[in-house]
Amino acid sequence: MILFLTTSAAEGAGFLLPLLIMLVAAKVMAELFERLRQPAVAGEILAGVLIGPSVLNWVTPSDFTNLLAKIGVIFLLFSVGLETRPAEMFRVGKRAALVAIMGVIAPFGAGVLLMRLWGASGVEAMFVGTAMVATSVGITARVLSSLGLLETKTARIILGAAVIDDILGLLVLAVVTSLASGSVNYTALILTSVLAIGFTAFVALVGAPMVTRMAPRIENLRVSHALFVASLLLCLGLSAAAAYIGVAAIIGAFLAGLAFAEASEDKPTMRQQMSGVTEFLIPFFLVNIGMLLKLEVFRDRWVIALALLVTLVAVLTKLVACGLAAQGLGWRRAGQIGMGMVPRGEVGIVVAQIGLALAVLDQKLYGVVLLMAVATTLIAPPFLRVLYANEVREMKTDPVNGDVQ
Amino acid sequence: MILFLTTSAAEGAGFLLPLLIMLVAAKVMAELFERLRQPAVAGEILAGVLIGPSVLNWVTPSDFTNLLAKIGVIFLLFSVGLETRPAEMFRVGKRAALVAIMGVIAPFGAGVLLMRLWGASGVEAMFVGTAMVATSVGITARVLSSLGLLETKTARIILGAAVIDDILGLLVLAVVTSLASGSVNYTALILTSVLAIGFTAFVALVGAPMVTRMAPRIENLRVSHALFVASLLLCLGLSAAAAYIGVAAIIGAFLAGLAFAEASEDKPTMRQQMSGVTEFLIPFFLVNIGMLLKLEVFRDRWVIALALLVTLVAVLTKLVACGLAAQGLGWRRAGQIGMGMVPRGEVGIVVAQIGLALAVLDQKLYGVVLLMAVATTLIAPPFLRVLYANEVREMKTDPVNGDVQ
Repeated sequence: MILFLTTSAAEGAGFLLPLLIMLVAAKVMAELFERLRQPAVAGEILAGVLIGPSVLNWVTPSDFTNLLAKIGVIFLLFSVGLETRPAEMFRVGKRAALVAIMGVIAPFGAGVLLMRLWGASGVEAMFVGTAMVATSVGITARVLSSLGLLETKTARIILGAAVIDDILGLLVLAVVTSLASGSVNYTALILTSVLAIGFTAFVALVGAPMVTRMAPRIENLRVSHALFVASLLLCLGLSAAAAYIGVAAIIGAFLAGLAFAEASEDKPTMRQQMSGVTEFLIPFFLVNIGMLLKLEVFRDRWVIALALLVTLVAVLTKLVACGLAAQGLGWRRAGQIGMGMVPRGEVGIVVAQIGLALAVLDQKLYGVVLLMAVATTLIAPPFLRVLYANEVREMKTDPVNGDVQ
Repeated sequence: MILFLTTSAAEGAGFLLPLLIMLVAAKVMAELFERLRQPAVAGEILAGVLIGPSVLNWVTPSDFTNLLAKIGVIFLLFSVGLETRPAEMFRVGKRAALVAIMGVIAPFGAGVLLMRLWGASGVEAMFVGTAMVATSVGITARVLSSLGLLETKTARIILGAAVIDDILGLLVLAVVTSLASGSVNYTALILTSVLAIGFTAFVALVGAPMVTRMAPRIENLRVSHALFVASLLLCLGLSAAAAYIGVAAIIGAFLAGLAFAEASEDKPTMRQQMSGVTEFLIPFFLVNIGMLLKLEVFRDRWVIALALLVTLVAVLTKLVACGLAAQGLGWRRAGQIGMGMVPRGEVGIVVAQIGLALAVLDQKLYGVVLLMAVATTLIAPPFLRVLYANEVREMKTDPVNGDVQ
């Protein structure tokens, strides 16, 4: 009887169940991970592994889940851009730039070298190297914020450097993605680099101030929530434009976020509306990431060995290269900055997924990169707490900078 | 060269362009309609007609746009539920209930009768009748709010009655939808009605107080924006449950909104987050509605004649039946209440689309219902301003209830 009834009214409602399962799994695991003082992002990816074909097989990756993931990652990069203050990069100046540049060159070079020695092809090696480039600013920022240390000099250098290396990482991705098209066309490669850099420079230098200047006029429009709507349109528009000129759509989304970062700084309503969209859509990206992981690749001990090796290189290169770049501040601070740059997270994961989608990375390398991205994110926070122990103690006993508790 | 580049990086970014075009068109038309003092909803539907196959053919209705529309309508009904105060229904009491019930029976009866006389089948007639049932509370509320008259007794009766007839309308829809499955199975029909009423009663009487009681505990969860996330999960969960027990998914979404209405009353963050999701997703529903309209059906003069006739009946039945129900308050107030109940809008449009999807309504009848829903929405506001002219004057000269201007 029930079956008879559902055929009519449930028609076309079949998309609801995967949507529901993905969101419930993501949020339950996020809650669990937060309680274990681990990053929610890792929990949401693990949720995907659990409900995906590798374990429970409740939801199968499909065109539909891929589409949701693509929309999710666009809003993920938009929100990363929205949290990025171009002004911060300039404020901490040369030191942050040096930390960022060293922190891009070392992991990329070491990653490519390691993979080549392992016997990977040039394009495979460059994709893994690219995934090792970009620091995930969110994890470190959350740790430092929970310690009440966001205003320290090292924190500001870390955040500034993370912003710069996000941009550098996306540029490397733009170049490597176009390389991955198969035939290495150097004219096309240079054109892509120039387009990517030009696009980034234009949005950052011209677009952002323009949006900031136009914001009051946008808010005066009759259409409801005009500023929020304008940011949605710019996000989709620049994503489409980026895809059209041949760089990843997410770069456009990131730049759109960047353009609205300053204009939305004192607009809590707009930010909360955007957080509603991102809280809803990003989990589909993270869960899909997990669903695409074939756990059986780790039955191969060489894959586990490679994953551990890549993770080790990813940690050491950031720690040493960024630490050296900040060495003028003393060894302890250099260590804080080096460790602060270790978590990869989102951008590394995005690179892994693009590599899989372009068939540049196979299932094994996808697993390796994913494990590296998640592992660096889990490793850094406890070390950061240890490295900042002195500052936390000082703050507690110094009545000027903090309350005695 | 550009083409060569796009093949790699733009791969799978093809969904961005229809997304962008739909959202831009919707918001430009919404802005235009707001400036002309017309409802934005009508503008967004017209945007769909313009970019759809009937006129410019920039975007073709596809599985993808249908999917977006389905997600959009779920959040539309969720937000309608969220704006519904069950307490309001009880406060204005019997008068509102009488207005609502008369306002359901008269248009449904007259609509079915008219369609049967026109030669339509029983199921067609019932679908058109159902589309004529539910008042769109949003339009009237916005007019009264712009006049500063939301606190008047007639306004409260209109809003209370609109809430009740939303629920009655959705119940009628549940029954008619299950009827539309083709074979009229009376046992199944009764079962659906009982399930729909039981489901509604359970959520309204048990679910809503439970959510309100549990809200502080939900907010204490570690997962970020827990209350908002919980409302998303309940929305998707009840939608899936409604589809499973054989009533339209949107009824579950509406009830989920209803369940969170009280709990979220003093939670501006959660409401703004939800408004972000709805502002983003609802336009896809409205634009899709317009895209599905084949303008050429109006080349048939009989279709235009029927559309005008249905619109006339839709206006007169609400005006007369609701006016009579409120007649004890004096004729002027009865007229205000009757006219306040005229706009159909969203729910009528939802019924039209379900009818089209179930192949119960053909393109012509879809056009007729759509025109009625939009026309009643455009007709009511100017009349309301005239009918409330006295109150507006009084308020301006009465220093107790309003400022002298």
